[in-house]
Amino acid sequence: MPELFTVVSPDDAFERLRAVLAPVVRVESVPLERAIGRTLAREIVASEPLPPFTRSAMDGYAVCARETHGASESSPVYLRLEGEALMGTLPAFALAAGTCARIHTGAALPRGADAVVMVEETNLLESGDVEVLTAVASGEDVIQAAEDLAPGDLAFAAGHHLRPIDVGGLAALGVVEVPVAARPRVAVISTGDELVPPDVRPRPGEIRDVNGALICAMLGQAGADVRHYGIVEDDEQRLFAAAAAALAESDALVVTAGSSVSARDNTARALGRLGEPGILLHGIDVKPGKPTIVACAAGRPVFGLPGNPVSAAVLCWRLVVPAVRLMLGETIPAGGLGAAACTARLTQNVPSRSGREDYVPVTLVRGADGTLGAQPTFAKSNLIFSLLRCDGLLRVPRDAGGLRAGEMAEVYPW
Amino acid sequence: MPELFTVVSPDDAFERLRAVLAPVVRVESVPLERAIGRTLAREIVASEPLPPFTRSAMDGYAVCARETHGASESSPVYLRLEGEALMGTLPAFALAAGTCARIHTGAALPRGADAVVMVEETNLLESGDVEVLTAVASGEDVIQAAEDLAPGDLAFAAGHHLRPIDVGGLAALGVVEVPVAARPRVAVISTGDELVPPDVRPRPGEIRDVNGALICAMLGQAGADVRHYGIVEDDEQRLFAAAAAALAESDALVVTAGSSVSARDNTARALGRLGEPGILLHGIDVKPGKPTIVACAAGRPVFGLPGNPVSAAVLCWRLVVPAVRLMLGETIPAGGLGAAACTARLTQNVPSRSGREDYVPVTLVRGADGTLGAQPTFAKSNLIFSLLRCDGLLRVPRDAGGLRAGEMAEVYPW
Repeated sequence: MPELFTVVSPDDAFERLRAVLAPVVRVESVPLERAIGRTLAREIVASEPLPPFTRSAMDGYAVCARETHGASESSPVYLRLEGEALMGTLPAFALAAGTCARIHTGAALPRGADAVVMVEETNLLESGDVEVLTAVASGEDVIQAAEDLAPGDLAFAAGHHLRPIDVGGLAALGVVEVPVAARPRVAVISTGDELVPPDVRPRPGEIRDVNGALICAMLGQAGADVRHYGIVEDDEQRLFAAAAAALAESDALVVTAGSSVSARDNTARALGRLGEPGILLHGIDVKPGKPTIVACAAGRPVFGLPGNPVSAAVLCWRLVVPAVRLMLGETIPAGGLGAAACTARLTQNVPSRSGREDYVPVTLVRGADGTLGAQPTFAKSNLIFSLLRCDGLLRVPRDAGGLRAGEMAEVYPW
Repeated sequence: MPELFTVVSPDDAFERLRAVLAPVVRVESVPLERAIGRTLAREIVASEPLPPFTRSAMDGYAVCARETHGASESSPVYLRLEGEALMGTLPAFALAAGTCARIHTGAALPRGADAVVMVEETNLLESGDVEVLTAVASGEDVIQAAEDLAPGDLAFAAGHHLRPIDVGGLAALGVVEVPVAARPRVAVISTGDELVPPDVRPRPGEIRDVNGALICAMLGQAGADVRHYGIVEDDEQRLFAAAAAALAESDALVVTAGSSVSARDNTARALGRLGEPGILLHGIDVKPGKPTIVACAAGRPVFGLPGNPVSAAVLCWRLVVPAVRLMLGETIPAGGLGAAACTARLTQNVPSRSGREDYVPVTLVRGADGTLGAQPTFAKSNLIFSLLRCDGLLRVPRDAGGLRAGEMAEVYPW
C-alpha cells in the first residue's frame, strides 16, 4: 500500500487515471440549435461539394477571362450582354464567344464563364454592350465549387467540442441532427460535519456547503450531467454507503472531502472500497490542492477533492474537467492540461518549490506596449471570494522553481 | 439622408446605437444550479460575515499566541490540553491561561484562542500536556470571521456575467434563487432567393442558409432568447412585413442581408421603415463586414448583417453580441469591444488600410520562449470552414495601417 500513496505530479495523476478508465461514448442525436457545447460522437464528412456550384463573389459581369486580356481604361474590351445569371438557379444559357452575363454576388456562373469583372470596372453602354476596363484572371472574384469542402473531406473530427461558429459549418453541410456524446453522469457528494446546504442558515460553528454547487457548476459547464447527492457526515461507513449508491447510477463520482487529516483519511478508506483497482494515488504535488485522492472503481473515475473551495476549484479544473472531456471522447493532451489560451508577462516574482506545480490567481493588466501583464493577487485557499476576484490562474510549471518578474507565463482565464 | 449613410468606425457604430437604445432589464429568478452564463440583474451584498466565525486553517492546537512566545524545539512551551473544538459547533469552553485545545481544519476557535499551532510543530505528552515547538503570531493559521466578506460588502455587482466559480460564491452567501436579467428576445431573419433551410437539399443554384443558424448560435451563447423567423425572399415589401411582425414580439432584430448591392438596398429600405429613428448607419469601416446596417426602431436595435457567413460572424460578434450584453445590463466598454483575453506575436506582416479596423483569422502557435504566436490563415469571407479552422480573430486597430511581423497583437479566441 505505501507505494501507492506516493505524491505524484498532476500530469502523472491524470495519466494514471487515463490508464485504467474505460470510457464508452454513448451517442445521442440533438437538433442543431442545441448542439453548442456538446462533443461530436462521430466525425462529420462532407457528402456534397461546398459550395455546391461555382459562384460569383462580386456584383458585376461573368466573363471568359481570356476574352478580357489586355483590357484597360485606355483600351477597353467590349462584350455583348447575353443575359443575367439569376439567384437560386443555374443559368440555362452558356456564354458564347464575345459575350458576358450580368451576375450578382452568390449567383451561379453560367457555363463558359470562369471569372467575374466587378461592376465598378465596367460601363454598360446603350448599345447593350459592356465595356470592360480591366483584365481579369481565370477564377478572379469567383468561388469555385468545392472550394470550401469537397465530397469526402473531413469537416469535423469525432470528439470535436462544438462552438457557436461550428453550428454554421454544420448548417452548411445540412447536419441538422447532430450525433453527440451523451453527457456522462457525474455524482457529487459533499462531506463535513460543519456543512449545511446553501439554502439553510448556518447555526454557530456551521458553514454553507460551497464546494457542492461549485463542482456541479464547473462539471456541468464541461459537459457532464451532474447530480448533487447532498452532504454526508464525516464517517467512513456512511460515506461508503452514500458513495456506492451514487456511483451505482453514475459514470463518475466526486467527493469533496473535509480538510482535516481525519476527514481525508475517512474519505480515502471509503473511496478505496468502491471497486477495483481502488485508490490510484493520495496526494498530488500541486499547490493548492495537495490532499487530493484519485481512485477508479470498475472503469469509473472517483475523485476526493480537498475541502477548501479554492483547492477544490483548482483541482476540479485541473483533473476532473479533463476526465469528463475524456469520457466525452475528446482528445485530451498528455497530462490532462491543454495549452494555455493566454500568456502574460509576470509583474512580480512568484516563488515556488521545484518539483511542485503551482497555480496562482492573477489579474490581467494591459501594458503600454500592448502586452498583457499577470499580477498575482492575494488569495487564501479558504476564501472563495478571493478567487472570484481574479481573472484566471497562472501556472508555475513543475520544474521552474518559481518564476521571475518579466517572464512570460501561462495564464488560464476563468 | 446622405449624411446618415457615412461609413463609420465599428466603435462609432456601437456608440450611435447605444445612444438611442432604451434597454429595460426584466428581472427573473433562477435556481442557483441554472445561473451559469446568466447576468445578475441586481447587486449581491453580503448580509452575513463570511466566514461566519473564526476558523482554524490547519489541524493542530488552538492557542493564545502570546503564550507561545519564545517557543522552539530546544526550548518548548508546555500547555495543558483543555479539550477539543469539534466541527460544526462553537466550543462551549474558553481557553484559560496555560491551556490549549485540539482543533481540526475548519473548526471554530474557542474563546481566548487567537492562533493555531500545526500538529507537526507539537508533541502530545502522556501527561496530557502539549509540547509546543514553535512560536506563533496572533492570527497565524487562522481564518478570521468576515475575512472573505463582511456584512454590507459588495459580493457581485449588478450586470455581472456569472461564471461557474461564481456559483460557489453565491452558494457561500446562501443565494439559491438568483435574480438575473431575463434573456432579451432576438428575432433572426435570413434573406436571399438562393437560400434553403439547412434541412433541405439545395437544388442547382441554391445553397443552405448558414447565417441563420450561425447567428442564432452566437446570440444564444451571449444570453439571448433567439428565434429564427425563417428565410424571406429578396423583396423589400415582403422583408418589411416579416421584419415588422418579428420585431413586434421581440426586443431586437437581426437580418442577414443578401450580399449583392440590390439585396442590401432592399434590406436597408425595409429596415428603415420599422420605426424611429430608423437607419443609424449603412456601412462600417471594418474588414470583413463593411456592408452592415445598424438601425433602431422605438428603442429596439435592428441589424442588417452581410450575407457572407464570415462577415456575418465577425460583425455579429463585434456589434450584435455587445448589444445583447448591453440589453442584459452588462457594462460594455466604449466602442463595444472588451479587452482581448490574449495577445500574441505576429508571425508575418498583416497589411491594412489606415482608418479601417480589420479582423484576420489566426491560429495560435507556441514559440520556444513560451510566447504565443499568431499565424494569419487563409480565409475567404464566403467560406465558413476557412473560418472554423482558426483559433480566433486578430484585430488590426483602426489607425495601425497594418501590423508588422514580430509585433504583439490582440487576439480574440473563438
